[in-house]
Amino acid sequence: MMNTKADSNFNSVETFLTQCQKVNSPIVLVTSGGTLVPLEKNTVRFIDNFSTGRRGAASVEYFLELNYSVIFYYRAGSIQPFDRHIHNVFDILLSTSHSEQLTKTIEQYKSYKNNLLSISFKTVTEYLDGLELLCKVLNPYRKLAMIYLCAAVSDYYLPLDELPEHKISSEQNELVLRLKPVKKVLGDVKQHWSPDAYVVSFKLETNKQLLQDKCIKSLKKYGHNMVIGNLLDTRETMVDIYDEEGKKCTTIKRPDNNCEIEHQIIQFLYKKHEEYRKQI
Amino acid sequence: MMNTKADSNFNSVETFLTQCQKVNSPIVLVTSGGTLVPLEKNTVRFIDNFSTGRRGAASVEYFLELNYSVIFYYRAGSIQPFDRHIHNVFDILLSTSHSEQLTKTIEQYKSYKNNLLSISFKTVTEYLDGLELLCKVLNPYRKLAMIYLCAAVSDYYLPLDELPEHKISSEQNELVLRLKPVKKVLGDVKQHWSPDAYVVSFKLETNKQLLQDKCIKSLKKYGHNMVIGNLLDTRETMVDIYDEEGKKCTTIKRPDNNCEIEHQIIQFLYKKHEEYRKQI
Repeated sequence: MMNTKADSNFNSVETFLTQCQKVNSPIVLVTSGGTLVPLEKNTVRFIDNFSTGRRGAASVEYFLELNYSVIFYYRAGSIQPFDRHIHNVFDILLSTSHSEQLTKTIEQYKSYKNNLLSISFKTVTEYLDGLELLCKVLNPYRKLAMIYLCAAVSDYYLPLDELPEHKISSEQNELVLRLKPVKKVLGDVKQHWSPDAYVVSFKLETNKQLLQDKCIKSLKKYGHNMVIGNLLDTRETMVDIYDEEGKKCTTIKRPDNNCEIEHQIIQFLYKKHEEYRKQI
Repeated sequence: MMNTKADSNFNSVETFLTQCQKVNSPIVLVTSGGTLVPLEKNTVRFIDNFSTGRRGAASVEYFLELNYSVIFYYRAGSIQPFDRHIHNVFDILLSTSHSEQLTKTIEQYKSYKNNLLSISFKTVTEYLDGLELLCKVLNPYRKLAMIYLCAAVSDYYLPLDELPEHKISSEQNELVLRLKPVKKVLGDVKQHWSPDAYVVSFKLETNKQLLQDKCIKSLKKYGHNMVIGNLLDTRETMVDIYDEEGKKCTTIKRPDNNCEIEHQIIQFLYKKHEEYRKQI
């Protein structure tokens, strides 16, 4: 797994934001990838989810193109912006010239790398602690900040005092895991940590029937500015957008195979965030 | 995640092995990375283990250096041979000259790429089916073949008929998972699939007290030629080797920080496999 740049730590966030302030760019926090739930203290096994982090990494690129400064808060090992376009590094290193696409990617990386700060997490506990910290640091930037919650956060975990100390023996007839719900912090983002930020969250379901209800319920419960609903099977071609009024405001479809749906989503969000920033 | 070469499928194995036969090189099947256990049919969540695939990828390089033809059977997304030495692809693409280490890696990749066949798996079920197939294909090569079982295979899984159809709701007070033991196939490798191959398996524990017993038990139970025991915390600096006689034959330690322990392990295995091939 390659990273486009060395990981930063939380201390670097304030410095990064001060630079953003100088150029008065909007700022977005993009969370990306899945979160791990350890099943043992000496962690050998864990529960994970399918998220590759592709959507988060793609979104980062489109935000950068629209002049956002981006804090990319991603699961270690998940897909990285720019880097994701490189499929066979040795083919590239052994070839004498670069393809048009690669040349474009290299140029984009050069142009945008100073506007991107990357910070990684692994477990759901690390993720939640870091999210609180990042939202609070963004709070003074008020409406200039967007919080784009694209990470696939675990719903259940094994509380620390229930974790076995050592690797679970493989010789039991059955292994019973009793998982508890993870504390829901989606409400805290707007209610406590960063009340003026423009907050967008994602809702992924596998059952079409449930999706609309869940999105509307989520909007009302957590007070976000937008909820983007998508189904596991069609998530790369279609999403439904639900806004503050608690109803579906639009459906975004990928126009063709040469285009990523995130391009459309971020264009749409850009306009919504711009309107929001102009509100008194 | 980058791959050093496009994935092959199982159909390509016979062609690859025919090429190996022409040069009369020894052959090794290296399994690598963890296996996924889906918790839903429409897979959103799964159980995984910590394995990055580093040991498998490193071992492949050292086997290639010793003139082995290598079938690399790896978990999709895990660490790849050669590729693992490249940390920041854009720094490389933007620089005008390559470091000594990178030049060496590119040369090695060029030299060895035709001796390496890579095939990926994801779930534990896929892994087990593929392993059987690969071991059976290797069977005619008898003692020329080594089977190096480095993948971290799940011990428990959720049987298909117990998997929920859709994403588990996040609103329950508790999520109880009743996992069943995965069928142990370690015995089948020597007993049924590839009786004459030189079979090496790994045993990872977190508890030092248990390790020796488990290795000896494993050797006797599965009839492998060698079991390599290691502890989670020290696995990159020290391993214990247990041989067919059912006792510890040596301990291998990493000589210094500039060297990988897999270099030592593969050198040791090379000699053992050579002796084994000479036996009538």
